[in-house]
Amino acid sequence: MAQQTHRVVIVGGGFAGVNAAKALAKLPVSISMVDRRNYHLFQPLLYQVATGGLSPSDIAYPLRAIFKKNRNVEVLLAEVRDLDPDNKVVHLESGSLPYDSLVVATGAGGQYFGSDHWEPFAPSLKTIDDATEIRRRVLLAFEAAERETNLDKQLSWLTFAVIGAGPTGVELAGTLGEIARDTLKRDFRHIQTDRARILLIEGANRVLPTYPADLSLQAERALIRLGVRARTGVKVVNINVNGLEVEGPRGRELLPCRTVLWAAGVKASRLGRILHERTGVELDRAGRVLVDEHLNVPGHPDIYVVGDLAHVKQPDGGMVPGVAPAAMQMGRFAANGIGARLRGQRVKAFVYWDKGSLATIGRNKAVADFGKLRFGGPLAWLAWLFIHLMYLVGFQNRLVVFVQWAFSYLTFNRKARLITGGVVLPDLTQPRQAEEERAEQQTALSRES
Amino acid sequence: MAQQTHRVVIVGGGFAGVNAAKALAKLPVSISMVDRRNYHLFQPLLYQVATGGLSPSDIAYPLRAIFKKNRNVEVLLAEVRDLDPDNKVVHLESGSLPYDSLVVATGAGGQYFGSDHWEPFAPSLKTIDDATEIRRRVLLAFEAAERETNLDKQLSWLTFAVIGAGPTGVELAGTLGEIARDTLKRDFRHIQTDRARILLIEGANRVLPTYPADLSLQAERALIRLGVRARTGVKVVNINVNGLEVEGPRGRELLPCRTVLWAAGVKASRLGRILHERTGVELDRAGRVLVDEHLNVPGHPDIYVVGDLAHVKQPDGGMVPGVAPAAMQMGRFAANGIGARLRGQRVKAFVYWDKGSLATIGRNKAVADFGKLRFGGPLAWLAWLFIHLMYLVGFQNRLVVFVQWAFSYLTFNRKARLITGGVVLPDLTQPRQAEEERAEQQTALSRES
Repeated sequence: MAQQTHRVVIVGGGFAGVNAAKALAKLPVSISMVDRRNYHLFQPLLYQVATGGLSPSDIAYPLRAIFKKNRNVEVLLAEVRDLDPDNKVVHLESGSLPYDSLVVATGAGGQYFGSDHWEPFAPSLKTIDDATEIRRRVLLAFEAAERETNLDKQLSWLTFAVIGAGPTGVELAGTLGEIARDTLKRDFRHIQTDRARILLIEGANRVLPTYPADLSLQAERALIRLGVRARTGVKVVNINVNGLEVEGPRGRELLPCRTVLWAAGVKASRLGRILHERTGVELDRAGRVLVDEHLNVPGHPDIYVVGDLAHVKQPDGGMVPGVAPAAMQMGRFAANGIGARLRGQRVKAFVYWDKGSLATIGRNKAVADFGKLRFGGPLAWLAWLFIHLMYLVGFQNRLVVFVQWAFSYLTFNRKARLITGGVVLPDLTQPRQAEEERAEQQTALSRES
Repeated sequence: MAQQTHRVVIVGGGFAGVNAAKALAKLPVSISMVDRRNYHLFQPLLYQVATGGLSPSDIAYPLRAIFKKNRNVEVLLAEVRDLDPDNKVVHLESGSLPYDSLVVATGAGGQYFGSDHWEPFAPSLKTIDDATEIRRRVLLAFEAAERETNLDKQLSWLTFAVIGAGPTGVELAGTLGEIARDTLKRDFRHIQTDRARILLIEGANRVLPTYPADLSLQAERALIRLGVRARTGVKVVNINVNGLEVEGPRGRELLPCRTVLWAAGVKASRLGRILHERTGVELDRAGRVLVDEHLNVPGHPDIYVVGDLAHVKQPDGGMVPGVAPAAMQMGRFAANGIGARLRGQRVKAFVYWDKGSLATIGRNKAVADFGKLRFGGPLAWLAWLFIHLMYLVGFQNRLVVFVQWAFSYLTFNRKARLITGGVVLPDLTQPRQAEEERAEQQTALSRES
């Protein structure tokens, strides 16, 4: 009679995990949502935090608040140490959680293609702390340029490089262009911020390489008007505190530049490797888990991998892209799969429904690719605005973000331009040395952890 | 003919410094505003950031944006190393600034009355980074309580102590009570957050000791309804990771408690001591500079000290209080003084115009003391709300804060409940050890700096 409730453990509170939990909460199961952060992050707008347009709490929402009405969902602030598929247990840094079904949705981080030592010089944008660190670097670069009297060094502070011209890279570069041309225009007395150079480095031969070629062209034209110079068909061969070295058709070239941002590739999170070790499942080159058509680890119908951590083949041989709508669909699919198994039913294979892609470049400028329908300009920008506002969790966030956007739009201002995180200022007369020390410290730290 | 423009250096971009600069900007002088942070902070609402109600950027505004239209104001992100009154030079960590008039407005920090080793266990609330650190500790305490199975330890995580029952302490304690009783009510599964205990420790024999006695009584009653227990007439004799020890009429007592916040006293910033060493000016016990009736360092009519760093005697023998309206008045007075000197005129002595005091306790609850007119309850709360919104710099901030308050009021939610600043989680099974290590690290850091 007293049958034990089916226990589902979900690891990761991103788009995939939250959507899985929300769908499962309606079923007679008990759910543990494990995340090492206490909030769900609306990652598509993270570049707005990195560039001072929005505050962290505008795009992050407490996980406990999301599930407060779902009494069968328990939120655990914890880090997963290991998985034990044989005994159906998840090991946390303290204690362990038994499960009947497991959903792994821990996403991906920055991928430096074997050059992890570039990370201190070229941070990637995946977390709130990344975003506030990038914001700190960008704002300090303008401060340093204002104080610098050597013109070469000043230009190097006023040069910003973004590596990778996918949607995130294009959004970052475009916003940096807007900041330099509009937001900071009258803020400084010794530099003209609109003379800042923003380089957008891309290995493929056009920006937004996954978009149709005509939209790439539109995007590149819009970027040029914002002062962004796209350098396509070039490969990054080195990054250090003085700048970056690229290799292209014209040979090697050194680009002096004090601020480099990384938007070039993703690497699956650590749990992919743990799954590989414990179940033998195959991983792709980026460390993603090759799941079957039901998003299960092959041979383990009780383990689902969803979101950016999953490598899912599409009928045309391509891979389901690592975007928010795909993660949400996978999360809900896994929840349905668990429900069906409980009822003794089978479900059809997962099919990704591509609703189209949108990338914004700046004020009024975006490109939209809805299959046959594709367009750029203000209409695409409005579509982008509308869709992002609708998907923001929490009505209050939506309204606050809308108010901030409306003001930014009307006034060209970006109010969240705060340099936080310690009061240590770079020694602006000896910037190179100070930066190198900081980089060394960071390398030392990452070695320790 | 080519007379050099009068150069004013203002150190500190708080209420006093910003008001001085804004008033001076209308005169034919050139102004350098030096601050080690790039923003002006609306400190009266900092407790709202510490308790997750507002985001840092809601109450901080970039200094450069404040002065963008004042072409004769230059903002310098820099730390002052030393002052040289004989040669009229301010030494920065790199370079130096000559001045004709100097305004020192660097404010005050937390004062631990000779027990600085308590600081790691009982942070004070003066900067944005303090506020996000306190927010982190408060939220992690509830997380730790949820995971803790030992009931004594759980209770210790659910006990919060606020030291000092002035306006800041009362506001912090009241807001913690609201968080426990309303905001987090349905967020956890293993603890009842409304059983959290909030202790408000005060050495005087009533809360809000600078207010009339009847308002203190009203405030204490309102606090009790929020679950805050005021312990008046007791002195803190020790603080460590396990809690605090107090001494009162009933002797010594140990209060087990994992989260202690410090709101007990202020200590003038480092520049007070530098002024003392360079000019011989007297300091009071808290390190404030005893200025003359023109807010000058005696014998130095070109050096003004304004805001929380200044000790200004009132006609009745008391001291002008360290509140925002006083700082704003002093800043404008110094600007007028400089203007008068340029025209060869003299100004009257500084007189503080006390517009009254307001302290909020929570939803609908506040006390107002406008001299003869004093009252508590919803009307005082509305007055508090209105005045604070009006003084917030920047129209956009005002509107965003209003929207967030309206939502918090209607929904009992506080959206900025983010645990940021590194992904390191405390080991919740061994909390004592982890906390001690963190405290040791912090002590080591403060020793280095």
